[in-house]
Amino acid sequence: MENSILQQLKSRLREVHDLERAGAVLYWDQATYMPPGGSPERGRQLGTIAQIAQEKFTDPAVGKSLDQLQSLTESLPHDDDDASLVRVTRREYDRAIKVPPSFIAEVYQHITTTYQAWAQARPENDFEKMIPFLEKSLDLSRKMAGFFPGYDHIADPLIDLSDYGMKATEIRKIFSSLQEELVPLAKKISSLPPVDDSCLRRRYPHDQQMFFGERVIRQFGFDFGRGRQDKSPHPFTIKLSMGDVRITTRIKEDDFAWGFFSTTHEAGHAMYEQGVNPEFEGTPLDGGTSSGVHESQSRTWENIISRSLSFWEFFYPKLRETFPDALEDVPMEDFYRAINKVQPSLIRTEADEVTYNLHVMIRFELEMQLLEGTLAIKDLPEAWHKAYNTNLGIQAPSDTDGCMQDSHWYSGLIGGAFQGYTLGNIMSTQFFDQALASHPEIESEMAKGEFQTLHNWLKENIHQHGKKYTASELIKRVTGKDLDISPYIQYLKNKFGTLYSL
Amino acid sequence: MENSILQQLKSRLREVHDLERAGAVLYWDQATYMPPGGSPERGRQLGTIAQIAQEKFTDPAVGKSLDQLQSLTESLPHDDDDASLVRVTRREYDRAIKVPPSFIAEVYQHITTTYQAWAQARPENDFEKMIPFLEKSLDLSRKMAGFFPGYDHIADPLIDLSDYGMKATEIRKIFSSLQEELVPLAKKISSLPPVDDSCLRRRYPHDQQMFFGERVIRQFGFDFGRGRQDKSPHPFTIKLSMGDVRITTRIKEDDFAWGFFSTTHEAGHAMYEQGVNPEFEGTPLDGGTSSGVHESQSRTWENIISRSLSFWEFFYPKLRETFPDALEDVPMEDFYRAINKVQPSLIRTEADEVTYNLHVMIRFELEMQLLEGTLAIKDLPEAWHKAYNTNLGIQAPSDTDGCMQDSHWYSGLIGGAFQGYTLGNIMSTQFFDQALASHPEIESEMAKGEFQTLHNWLKENIHQHGKKYTASELIKRVTGKDLDISPYIQYLKNKFGTLYSL
Repeated sequence: MENSILQQLKSRLREVHDLERAGAVLYWDQATYMPPGGSPERGRQLGTIAQIAQEKFTDPAVGKSLDQLQSLTESLPHDDDDASLVRVTRREYDRAIKVPPSFIAEVYQHITTTYQAWAQARPENDFEKMIPFLEKSLDLSRKMAGFFPGYDHIADPLIDLSDYGMKATEIRKIFSSLQEELVPLAKKISSLPPVDDSCLRRRYPHDQQMFFGERVIRQFGFDFGRGRQDKSPHPFTIKLSMGDVRITTRIKEDDFAWGFFSTTHEAGHAMYEQGVNPEFEGTPLDGGTSSGVHESQSRTWENIISRSLSFWEFFYPKLRETFPDALEDVPMEDFYRAINKVQPSLIRTEADEVTYNLHVMIRFELEMQLLEGTLAIKDLPEAWHKAYNTNLGIQAPSDTDGCMQDSHWYSGLIGGAFQGYTLGNIMSTQFFDQALASHPEIESEMAKGEFQTLHNWLKENIHQHGKKYTASELIKRVTGKDLDISPYIQYLKNKFGTLYSL
Repeated sequence: MENSILQQLKSRLREVHDLERAGAVLYWDQATYMPPGGSPERGRQLGTIAQIAQEKFTDPAVGKSLDQLQSLTESLPHDDDDASLVRVTRREYDRAIKVPPSFIAEVYQHITTTYQAWAQARPENDFEKMIPFLEKSLDLSRKMAGFFPGYDHIADPLIDLSDYGMKATEIRKIFSSLQEELVPLAKKISSLPPVDDSCLRRRYPHDQQMFFGERVIRQFGFDFGRGRQDKSPHPFTIKLSMGDVRITTRIKEDDFAWGFFSTTHEAGHAMYEQGVNPEFEGTPLDGGTSSGVHESQSRTWENIISRSLSFWEFFYPKLRETFPDALEDVPMEDFYRAINKVQPSLIRTEADEVTYNLHVMIRFELEMQLLEGTLAIKDLPEAWHKAYNTNLGIQAPSDTDGCMQDSHWYSGLIGGAFQGYTLGNIMSTQFFDQALASHPEIESEMAKGEFQTLHNWLKENIHQHGKKYTASELIKRVTGKDLDISPYIQYLKNKFGTLYSL
């Protein structure tokens, strides 16, 4: 279907898209190289751009074009590209017109100053300083939800922004079933003698870590001609354009896992974005479909692949060559056990696969309570420590590694920021099982350092579609089933059952 | 003067300003870190942003505000900030409304692809490839001039964009007087035995060069809390915000001068921008007033300061500590002679102070001929070589170091790109003489590595004013005279007369 209304709509959407991507460049720069003096104006710049993008997108002319295209696209199949463009744009338009552009600018300006304040306050363990910022963030988050009256739960409109169609009630149900399985598993493993993972905390020089990480993700299929890797305090993936998807990582010379699994995690996100159908460029279809599906991709490469024995069968000799001093006396099996050590710990991004979701659930539940009004910002540190005590049996010595640990609440709205991690874990095994069913050779290829079959399968079945299908449509399309925790539970029980001889 | 019309105007100007600065971030990124795959969309992003900025600036509402403010500001003195804001905005508005926003977007898109093509074609010495790009650039440049009918010379409207108020005829006159003085001086020196500058081409390790350069410019007064230095093929200075002014440099391990004088040059530009009155932030007054005045600042720090004997009296021992292998056996006087070696050469940015302006004049004259239509793009390489033969008695072995040498024609319009360099050289000595007259201690402070008196004088007399005064107003205000080549000629004759015992 080609007609002038569609062309006109696409041209307007491209303009909005350019502004959004320009905002991404400003954000990336802010998080990587911007000097401190740039901070106040950068917030305003981001706000201005976001506001103009919002104004242009919510122009009644867009709504009119969408109305006119409605009948034309109704006759087309659901998976037609143009029909999908109109459908997804309609959904985003109907949502966007509910939010005033000045509010968007206010949010951007606020989160920019909040992020800068957090970057200072976090190492100083100064949560007090962050209270007014977070109170405003919470206020803005409630206001945002308020633009969508008729929700079941106040968090639903916020969750919708990252995981379209999911509801707080449904997520609580899934999380509760998962918790029932994970807590006994974690407990059982905790009762066993602890694995020695000290080999991971020997000296791994900075440059070699960057080199090794980049080598691995290049082999995965991350395209450095269409992306790059830099460093930032909190790693992230960002799409600056279809041909420019960037990741950031972090390096500690005395902690190999800290940087390496961050690199493979972000590469998973980035490969998703690099794999979107180029035809979708400049439209709302150009991007990952949900936070959950995005995490399914990052966790596939971070966990299912780069924490697997097959992966290290190929890469461990290379790793040893790169870090001879650190690994000379470490057999691969010991290294493999070290990177898969299960232990209740304080930091989400360093957590093992079994306890990781407990970190997520704590954050999700705190978000819900903040939004429901049953928890005040000033009481967040205490609530955080209490939740860690209850769920993981440990407590952070500071708020630095407590409720100031993640950047999410300090760089965006509160609510909807965390559930995607666990939804992604669940999906990752559903997808991977399906890939294995179609291509059993994936397993043996991994042990040869070959990832093309898997990467192609992911591109074909997930990446290329961008936002064309919702997460639930995609899961159904790919696996024939709905979201289901059992493959994930099975995966964990198999892997850690073997590892810990349960 | 404070009233709501002014506030409204300022708020609109701030929005335009934010978009322009966002464009600067995108440009900086493109020239430093962007992967090749980002190129096509980046051009479009820059074009979209420039077009929206242009649309917003040329909104009739801006004109109406300016009309309403006219009578209010007429009663204010010329140097009142608000009166200056209205005057300068009026000037830029009257110019901007003559250029259609779609044309701006077309130019941005074109120069982005041209720059990328040049970055590839230049090392491959493939001028042929650049012909269609340059032909389009020339076509766009003529079109641009065409938006300003009534000019004396087709280049005048283009010159106006960087050196407001200057005319091709006037520049040709100044250049011709200068040439009469420079050519005999250069010839006289060329007849003497050549200086040995081989010490500059020993091994100067990359990191130490970056370190030393940053140390020097920090001491000049470049504020790294409000700026940074990166590398790019062609060094430049760019203002991302009042608190974020960045420079780029280049490093060759076997050529100390190549990187070092580029760093001190760009630092001069950057300190100008860092020194603009913060009250001007977000308005058209926030920025250097002309290409010429900008170059006067860069050339002050590059030449008058960092190619002076006093400067090296302080820094040479530090330089030797940093590069002991290269400089152990080189007395300061030999080093000083080496960095001031006069010799006809191929590369403008490496040229000595005596021959430098001849490079500029060649480019300016070629630009004039291209615009006048007496020279075709395809004949540019030949014309370039011919001019170098005539003026400097040498010829480049390739177009890489010929007409593809500078980025200017490949990253902007043709016309008005070069005259500022020589105008700046002339102004730099007029300003510096004035600074010395007020503060004779500047000379002796330099020999102690102290630059605060000079920097403060420049801030006070030049930097803080931003675009408030035109270049000619500023020269008059600071020196009491008009633009005058005699102090510059005197400076060169003194310095090189002593150096070469003429």
